[in-house]
Amino acid sequence: MANFKPIIPENFINTDYLLLGNLHPAVQMAVIKQIPVRPKLVVLDTMNFWMDKTWNELMEVIAKIDVITINDEEARQLSGEYSLVKAAHKIQEMGPKYVVIKKGEHGALLFNDDNVFFAPALPLEEVFDPTGAGDTFAGGFIGHITKTGDISFENMKRAVIAGSNLASFCVEKFGTERMENLSPEEIQKRLLQFKQLTQFDIELS
Amino acid sequence: MANFKPIIPENFINTDYLLLGNLHPAVQMAVIKQIPVRPKLVVLDTMNFWMDKTWNELMEVIAKIDVITINDEEARQLSGEYSLVKAAHKIQEMGPKYVVIKKGEHGALLFNDDNVFFAPALPLEEVFDPTGAGDTFAGGFIGHITKTGDISFENMKRAVIAGSNLASFCVEKFGTERMENLSPEEIQKRLLQFKQLTQFDIELS
Repeated sequence: MANFKPIIPENFINTDYLLLGNLHPAVQMAVIKQIPVRPKLVVLDTMNFWMDKTWNELMEVIAKIDVITINDEEARQLSGEYSLVKAAHKIQEMGPKYVVIKKGEHGALLFNDDNVFFAPALPLEEVFDPTGAGDTFAGGFIGHITKTGDISFENMKRAVIAGSNLASFCVEKFGTERMENLSPEEIQKRLLQFKQLTQFDIELS
Repeated sequence: MANFKPIIPENFINTDYLLLGNLHPAVQMAVIKQIPVRPKLVVLDTMNFWMDKTWNELMEVIAKIDVITINDEEARQLSGEYSLVKAAHKIQEMGPKYVVIKKGEHGALLFNDDNVFFAPALPLEEVFDPTGAGDTFAGGFIGHITKTGDISFENMKRAVIAGSNLASFCVEKFGTERMENLSPEEIQKRLLQFKQLTQFDIELS
């Protein structure tokens, strides 16, 4: 990895939103350091491998970011807490104000202070290939933030839904196959399914 | 079990809503047969043990009910399908129009024809003792239906939330301890937490 030194092109250097993909934390740090004005929102995707192999470097990166996306087992490993609520609180103390915990077919949780939001995974007839679901989720998340330019908690909830929505397509076919011809209409239609899946009228008695 | 022959008291015999607790299907059938006018809604709770030991008797009961509540592994066993969507469809063909699949800390799904509703489990700091969560869920579900007298899909969604709400208290302490002094105010407050946990404003672009 030490040979991979990404150089950000000049016309991307003043980005407002930065997604650090799941790579060696030294690469992620090298990207952060190339950007002269701190972006409004920095999102980090990482995994257990970097926790096992490059703990100290990872912690330095984690201290500099706003949003971390990891899965449930990784949240437990990073925090030493089994309860995801406790894990999220501990991870927030390490740096990121927002913690997204992905639970695969069981959905995703977004934590910010004492706020919690839960996005379900869409129940599918068949999951063909889960490869790339996490990356697709991260892309959909930052894509929604970038498109809307709004980093409020309310909008971050929608970003989690947008990421879950895209990931639900990703797993339907092999590799990137399902994403290549995905239409905006299909995405909108599924967004409505997400809405219907979880919305209910509360009754206060 | 063959020695347990429950007799429904006279003043309960004309019930509109019947919950058949998780017992031997012969006991469940004996209860059904005591009721002269079919209730508006019959809910069945069962488990893997009865699938293993009393399959045929269980299938006879399942053919006579409206709602079944089982966990994810049991739904797979009952249907022979891994996908919960496919499992729910197969189980619907066995009798119950409504299938509730409980996923413990991962929430619960309600299926009816092509409608799906998902109720999350409330993310808790600590789960002390999961014993009784399934029974509490079933009680909260039928309690909501009985109180409101409404068996529409919309209201059944609320019943799933009501059951999930009560179950979230059950697991906080040992046995029935947490339920004994539970106040209506606590239940209402947590209902709002459930609402906040999953509700988002959709954006149609």
